[in-house]
Amino acid sequence: MQGLDAVRSCPIDVMEWHNVLDPSGPELDQLAERYKLHPLHIEDCRHRDQRAKMEEGESYLFTVLKPVRIDEDGDFVAVDVDIFFGPGFLITVEETDCPEVRNIIARVKRTMPPGSRPDRIYYRIIDEVVDSYLPLLDKLNDTIDALEDEALQSPTPEVLQSIFHSKRTLIFLRGVLVNTRDLAGQLQRLHVHWISPDLAPYLRDVYDHVARNLDMVEIMRDLLAGTLEVYLSSVANRTNQVMKVLTILGTIALPALVISGFYGMNVRGLPGAESPYGIGIAVATMLLVTGLLLWLLRRFGWL
Amino acid sequence: MQGLDAVRSCPIDVMEWHNVLDPSGPELDQLAERYKLHPLHIEDCRHRDQRAKMEEGESYLFTVLKPVRIDEDGDFVAVDVDIFFGPGFLITVEETDCPEVRNIIARVKRTMPPGSRPDRIYYRIIDEVVDSYLPLLDKLNDTIDALEDEALQSPTPEVLQSIFHSKRTLIFLRGVLVNTRDLAGQLQRLHVHWISPDLAPYLRDVYDHVARNLDMVEIMRDLLAGTLEVYLSSVANRTNQVMKVLTILGTIALPALVISGFYGMNVRGLPGAESPYGIGIAVATMLLVTGLLLWLLRRFGWL
Amino acid sequence: MQGLDAVRSCPIDVMEWHNVLDPSGPELDQLAERYKLHPLHIEDCRHRDQRAKMEEGESYLFTVLKPVRIDEDGDFVAVDVDIFFGPGFLITVEETDCPEVRNIIARVKRTMPPGSRPDRIYYRIIDEVVDSYLPLLDKLNDTIDALEDEALQSPTPEVLQSIFHSKRTLIFLRGVLVNTRDLAGQLQRLHVHWISPDLAPYLRDVYDHVARNLDMVEIMRDLLAGTLEVYLSSVANRTNQVMKVLTILGTIALPALVISGFYGMNVRGLPGAESPYGIGIAVATMLLVTGLLLWLLRRFGWL
Amino acid sequence: MQGLDAVRSCPIDVMEWHNVLDPSGPELDQLAERYKLHPLHIEDCRHRDQRAKMEEGESYLFTVLKPVRIDEDGDFVAVDVDIFFGPGFLITVEETDCPEVRNIIARVKRTMPPGSRPDRIYYRIIDEVVDSYLPLLDKLNDTIDALEDEALQSPTPEVLQSIFHSKRTLIFLRGVLVNTRDLAGQLQRLHVHWISPDLAPYLRDVYDHVARNLDMVEIMRDLLAGTLEVYLSSVANRTNQVMKVLTILGTIALPALVISGFYGMNVRGLPGAESPYGIGIAVATMLLVTGLLLWLLRRFGWL
Amino acid sequence: MQGLDAVRSCPIDVMEWHNVLDPSGPELDQLAERYKLHPLHIEDCRHRDQRAKMEEGESYLFTVLKPVRIDEDGDFVAVDVDIFFGPGFLITVEETDCPEVRNIIARVKRTMPPGSRPDRIYYRIIDEVVDSYLPLLDKLNDTIDALEDEALQSPTPEVLQSIFHSKRTLIFLRGVLVNTRDLAGQLQRLHVHWISPDLAPYLRDVYDHVARNLDMVEIMRDLLAGTLEVYLSSVANRTNQVMKVLTILGTIALPALVISGFYGMNVRGLPGAESPYGIGIAVATMLLVTGLLLWLLRRFGWL
Repeated sequence: MQGLDAVRSCPIDVMEWHNVLDPSGPELDQLAERYKLHPLHIEDCRHRDQRAKMEEGESYLFTVLKPVRIDEDGDFVAVDVDIFFGPGFLITVEETDCPEVRNIIARVKRTMPPGSRPDRIYYRIIDEVVDSYLPLLDKLNDTIDALEDEALQSPTPEVLQSIFHSKRTLIFLRGVLVNTRDLAGQLQRLHVHWISPDLAPYLRDVYDHVARNLDMVEIMRDLLAGTLEVYLSSVANRTNQVMKVLTILGTIALPALVISGFYGMNVRGLPGAESPYGIGIAVATMLLVTGLLLWLLRRFGWL
Repeated sequence: MQGLDAVRSCPIDVMEWHNVLDPSGPELDQLAERYKLHPLHIEDCRHRDQRAKMEEGESYLFTVLKPVRIDEDGDFVAVDVDIFFGPGFLITVEETDCPEVRNIIARVKRTMPPGSRPDRIYYRIIDEVVDSYLPLLDKLNDTIDALEDEALQSPTPEVLQSIFHSKRTLIFLRGVLVNTRDLAGQLQRLHVHWISPDLAPYLRDVYDHVARNLDMVEIMRDLLAGTLEVYLSSVANRTNQVMKVLTILGTIALPALVISGFYGMNVRGLPGAESPYGIGIAVATMLLVTGLLLWLLRRFGWL
Repeated sequence: MQGLDAVRSCPIDVMEWHNVLDPSGPELDQLAERYKLHPLHIEDCRHRDQRAKMEEGESYLFTVLKPVRIDEDGDFVAVDVDIFFGPGFLITVEETDCPEVRNIIARVKRTMPPGSRPDRIYYRIIDEVVDSYLPLLDKLNDTIDALEDEALQSPTPEVLQSIFHSKRTLIFLRGVLVNTRDLAGQLQRLHVHWISPDLAPYLRDVYDHVARNLDMVEIMRDLLAGTLEVYLSSVANRTNQVMKVLTILGTIALPALVISGFYGMNVRGLPGAESPYGIGIAVATMLLVTGLLLWLLRRFGWL
Repeated sequence: MQGLDAVRSCPIDVMEWHNVLDPSGPELDQLAERYKLHPLHIEDCRHRDQRAKMEEGESYLFTVLKPVRIDEDGDFVAVDVDIFFGPGFLITVEETDCPEVRNIIARVKRTMPPGSRPDRIYYRIIDEVVDSYLPLLDKLNDTIDALEDEALQSPTPEVLQSIFHSKRTLIFLRGVLVNTRDLAGQLQRLHVHWISPDLAPYLRDVYDHVARNLDMVEIMRDLLAGTLEVYLSSVANRTNQVMKVLTILGTIALPALVISGFYGMNVRGLPGAESPYGIGIAVATMLLVTGLLLWLLRRFGWL
Repeated sequence: MQGLDAVRSCPIDVMEWHNVLDPSGPELDQLAERYKLHPLHIEDCRHRDQRAKMEEGESYLFTVLKPVRIDEDGDFVAVDVDIFFGPGFLITVEETDCPEVRNIIARVKRTMPPGSRPDRIYYRIIDEVVDSYLPLLDKLNDTIDALEDEALQSPTPEVLQSIFHSKRTLIFLRGVLVNTRDLAGQLQRLHVHWISPDLAPYLRDVYDHVARNLDMVEIMRDLLAGTLEVYLSSVANRTNQVMKVLTILGTIALPALVISGFYGMNVRGLPGAESPYGIGIAVATMLLVTGLLLWLLRRFGWL
């Protein structure tokens, strides 16, 4: 391809890496002018909360990645890291005051010796971001596992709230991962002369990792939907059990009440009331009727 | 391409912008004759309530956009704005008496200086309409967030009605956005000589914004479906709780009633009735039986 | 294309329109022989209840359309109208004794002057059939709107039955519309010399109308599914409310019953029974306990 | 195409039709050797319970069809019929002892006169199998219709079991039909010289019939899912009604019990107890309180 | 194709089969160096828990298969077996200490005589793994069948837990099978000179088997979803029945209680209390009212 000649004329390992710490500062403007960055991309860097995406500019790739972190409330939030990668230059734009992004950049800088190939550094940053999703997914998986047990054993409103909260988190993560997967897929199909073809297996590897993360999210969604159904079934089951207890209590008490009410009437001719065995007759009748009722309920499977 | 020659012969920044305020008036007929607009498109302008769409006529693009506004009842309604955009002319057809469309047109006129390139104006109108969806989506998102809490804490029929109302709104917005996204996608793939290739990143940006809006709608649909399930689970939970209260009441009252009924019988030989401790015996029995029952219910986890 | 030469040699506005009123009669056999119609198509005309479809024969198009009507029971039923359209001839086969099809054919005949282009007449018939769906959809939409309110306000078994009936109707309409949309799509992609290219915008218009109808059906399906969920939630809510009433009744009555039972015992030593304030003591105790219970239920949010 | 020459050299109406009755016997081995049938296909004939499928061998088509029959328990079961169809030969392999397959083969033999074109016979066998599905689908449709009414009127566990049984049957039929549709689609796209092009409309007809059957199955699935929801709603409705009856009973009985308990107390000073109108006062109070309660429940819409 | 020449120069039946028992040992490193295996693939062998996949290296195929086994808790777990297959060599990497993989390799070694074609051995390993899924699926199918009956007859929390457990297993198996199907599909489309074209029907056979397994999983998912719905309906039904029993008990007891309470009042003028038939009057009234109530409930279909 024509790209190979280009590789020879432009040494891909001579590179300048600009790490912009303050996207609203003048540094970014100067870089934009020097490398002819598109105004829409600069705007994207400054108005945060973009989707993870990759856009091919005329002479560079503009990539938005979305590392995710857990905030003080235990919620998952996404931050932005923007990368401009062209022949001979790499510009990373951090979100101001975000330790997660800082750590990722630092880790890449530490592991890539000076003079490393720029396309490898570019790949490494993406790889680091993708790898950072896994512990979060594992954590969420544990939460969902626990919710399933709780829904079965104590279906309280708090569990309901937790199920819904996890659902929100999953929807959020799914959004981030879907976009990242599309980005990784685009990267695989890309042919630009400043990314060497021998990087292909590594880019496929990144794609595979994102795809696997996404599979995990889909499985968790499925399990969470099941958890809500288990919750509802579990509550229905408990109501059924409480009803049974109430009915059994009623079955025991009502005959006794009817018969004692009967013998409590101020009328003449109560059978056996005058007999010295009156009390015995009354109690025996109570026990007999209650027993008969309980036997009937069992017999016809009503309880 | 052949389009580039055409660009040279027809200066794209010399343009006439006709803004038709009354689609049923004769002005539109005159423009239709002058610019050879297709009768079906003129009919679309006059019979409102079209889908957002773009159709390529022989020498112009016919675009229907659907700005959305909130009416006095709080319902979301869509209005129509039709655009004919050809080489050297731009015709916008407003819906009679609709301030939203008027504002959008006015804002575009204000921000685009006279002599602006016509394709940029065309893009700006579409961009304005797409941007106008975001505050509406945010508002709806807040409503759905609030509904979730209410479904958990007080699942009244009013909440049920609100959930259903939000569902209707989402279905409506989804329809508008899906059509607008298709329109934006078509616009990206379009090759006509009166739209300059350097507009491509801007058109992609419009597409991205619509796609993001649509993602938001899908997420809200998902959350709303969850809210209905939470509602149902919450009601089931409350019924369960009420049943428990009733059963506990019964457990306390029934033994007392049975025993007081027993001692209320007008029969001979009530145990301890003649004793001066009669009342003590009776009350002690009541407390004992009730206590035993409550212990049993706990013991076997029936409550 | 070669089709254009064909157009010149065969004047497309000289046409014979045969309207066959009795598909089982000999007229259809004679036409089949004359125009070389495929036996399978003739069979389709005679065995009714085909799907809406279009098939390209060697020298003609065979189209089955499905106008829908409401029968005396309020059910939606589809009838068949078959069209053979070839260069220089148009054969429409009505269903015996069906006023809807007769009206459509009559309306087309009335509005198309003699000497009209045959492809326009063909388009007009399809357009009329597609237009006839809209009032039916509007009617169904009103029914579903009403059902939603009823499900919220009086979830009776009749409402449940109506929801299910509407569901059946929607499934039926969806089937008809999906097939008609496929037919319209096929028509757009078709290139036969006896349909002039200037009909293209009209055929696209037909497709758009069917697609919109189908969107309406999908939205109604979504709303109807919601209505069933609302119904279930509404019933659950009412059961919850009835349970609350019962529990409150129990809370009020049980203490009174226990205390009056207590003072109704034929034992010695009832506290205060001999006192002249006996009745006051008893009643005060009743009110106190009931009040305490109600306060407790409120306090712990059990009701 | 080259196929047309081949047709001339090999007369397609001279054919041998081998109908193998015992797939495990030596006859099949001899045919396999003579016509070079692939070992995997012979294995498929002997290990029954294949999917409906068509595979193109080097010089023949291997087709597995799945006629369905109702066994003595009323369950739907599929049997296998395998067809090898190559230029000049047709081998059908029946399942041992299966009257359905035998009937289909017999019917084809009866209706196709000796000397019929082999591709027509091949088509006829497939057509017969596809036609045999329709009465089964109609039968199932009637069952589902009946279940819907029963779910509304008497939602017993038996109905629940029948719903689930029908669901199983639908899932099973869907599997058979999906595979048969794929087979019919493959058949349409096939170009082999021993199937004449004039068979195309007939093959499309087979495809259409399978597609229609599949539509029916999808509609029945949809209706059956609705039936289960109706069942659940119907049970919920009935529980609600039973609760109302219980609550009304309680509303009537509890005031009477409280007041008669009140007057049953062995304390002094019961208001009006000594009066000759005592009984009237008591009864009047009972009726008044009950009436008041019922009015309140109605008034606030609690019942 | 060029592949055929290659076949002649490199005799495909002269092969070395390396079976690596310890993926972390040095043997794998030596093989990696000798056959130029990609570092990412070696890493995959060592970090277990990959997805089933196939990757084309420059001069070999890297395949990860996932045999499934049942662990001591009855859970389904997947293990890894990695295959490097290039012209003239086959490297299988077992998971340390996994009898299932060992058995599969042993079975292949036993059935393939020395000197067997390497592509046949490669196919056989894949075939063995795919065949090993069927007994597991059958076992799961039996479990789900049993769950359906239990959900209908005794919807206990244990059944709910089993349903959820089966759901998890299905989700897990589906993941394994989807990846294996993709692998098998890739294998069918593959053109490498060290796999002979006459293997194609066998590879299609593998694909068919995986696809069938996947169909079974989908059907089981569908049935399991139905089982959960049956469970919920069954619990609702039982609650309804318990409520009916309670209401019938109440209907029988409450009139008796009200009337005996009435005759238990210490007031004057109880009708018939002084009469010798008092008891008869009271009992007759009780029976009459109870009978009337039961008749009313039946009459208006409230029970």
